[in-house]
Amino acid sequence: MTGKIDQVFIDLALRLADASGPVILDYFRTSLAVEQKDDASPVTRADRETETVLREMLATAAPDHGVLGEEHGSERLDAEYVWVLDPIDGTRAFVNGIPLFGTLIALTQNGTPVLGVIDHPALGERWLGVAGAPSLHWGRGDDGAPVQSRPCGGLDRALLCATSPEMFSSDQLARFQKVSAAARDTRFGTDCYAYAMVASGQTDLVVEAGMQPYDYLAHAVMVTGAGGVITDWQGAALTLKSPGTVLAAGDPKVHAAALQLLSD
Amino acid sequence: MTGKIDQVFIDLALRLADASGPVILDYFRTSLAVEQKDDASPVTRADRETETVLREMLATAAPDHGVLGEEHGSERLDAEYVWVLDPIDGTRAFVNGIPLFGTLIALTQNGTPVLGVIDHPALGERWLGVAGAPSLHWGRGDDGAPVQSRPCGGLDRALLCATSPEMFSSDQLARFQKVSAAARDTRFGTDCYAYAMVASGQTDLVVEAGMQPYDYLAHAVMVTGAGGVITDWQGAALTLKSPGTVLAAGDPKVHAAALQLLSD
Repeated sequence: MTGKIDQVFIDLALRLADASGPVILDYFRTSLAVEQKDDASPVTRADRETETVLREMLATAAPDHGVLGEEHGSERLDAEYVWVLDPIDGTRAFVNGIPLFGTLIALTQNGTPVLGVIDHPALGERWLGVAGAPSLHWGRGDDGAPVQSRPCGGLDRALLCATSPEMFSSDQLARFQKVSAAARDTRFGTDCYAYAMVASGQTDLVVEAGMQPYDYLAHAVMVTGAGGVITDWQGAALTLKSPGTVLAAGDPKVHAAALQLLSD
Repeated sequence: MTGKIDQVFIDLALRLADASGPVILDYFRTSLAVEQKDDASPVTRADRETETVLREMLATAAPDHGVLGEEHGSERLDAEYVWVLDPIDGTRAFVNGIPLFGTLIALTQNGTPVLGVIDHPALGERWLGVAGAPSLHWGRGDDGAPVQSRPCGGLDRALLCATSPEMFSSDQLARFQKVSAAARDTRFGTDCYAYAMVASGQTDLVVEAGMQPYDYLAHAVMVTGAGGVITDWQGAALTLKSPGTVLAAGDPKVHAAALQLLSD
């Protein structure tokens, strides 16, 4: 269990999100060259520059905290508090000019996520999850409004989201397809936005794999604080050391039904 | 060949787009029940109400023109001018709360598209294509700014978009996968927004199938008017009677290279 989250940490997380948006938007829909990483995922200079800005802010505001980022590696992962950063989740969306990408900022305490921000600078939307508190939404007329996941009649009524069928190994794809066949409908290309839509009661289920801690930790508290359930494909809570499979559902019954198909 | 497009038709198309947005946004991210059509695609009341509004406007403004819509069928398809309407392209995006869906409004003259509007009410963005004129963009700081597709070094440098691998027959999927393997990267879940990104020089290639005239006709003029090339998978220009396969590219060389793989 973790204690109450210090307001200072919440304010810092929101300041990190505030700072990231303008750096990223300077590069969105420009013609800058896209650099290829070893794993061939499209990564832009925006990604790296944003993470540099966030790390500088953390070095000043919380020098004894650890940092794990997609772009610039890890520092002090044995610290009580570790910030986990993905400047641009949804780089494929970003490089194609699609505004669904988001900045993910999570804080873990002893490896367990206790705070998460999902910020969509090109959409003017943001979600905040804090352990023990309702998750909040800004944008589209909301200004820090609580969000709530929705009940769903059953897995056969559930809308399912995933970023790409190509994110799964062949064994994982077979399991995913069992869930997809049981669900009402499947939508691809959703990135981090799908988790926000689970939290906001707009969709029912996200099933993904091949994720890194910076891809999933920010979602964990947000989904839970909206009344949903989020675990790996074995039903374990997400931590810094999770295997990278993720199952998020707005309705606990739907989570249980999907988990049975994924963990078989 | 078609003559110069009457400004009255352009103004009417823009008024149709103006009218559709508020009807659709009244239903976006609400908890209204989603009705199932026979083909199981998710279709909302917003879709039907919007098309009704657009048809009423056309009945008043252009009573001798034909109309083909996704929701309410066809009238006077033998007229010289036929309006082709898809109130919500990307219903999967819409029902999951994702703002990428768009309203597609096309005008054909003797079966050939001569005008197209792609309107994204939840993003505040719009594209207009008119035969013989540069395509225009509104939103994200633009107010009717000309757009231009981008050159691409070759198919191996091209970013490829498609809405879903599930839109293809097995034969089509094999052809799509040849293009995907040859391209630099593939992004799913893009709906009509990908065609706008081709026109705006942000992505390079869209390869889709199983499309109806209301899914592709609005894109045709917009992509062409931005310097791109858009055809079916046999390289034929898109008309009211096309087979429903679509290949759009910002760079004619990339179109030719992808066409060779698709038409083999």
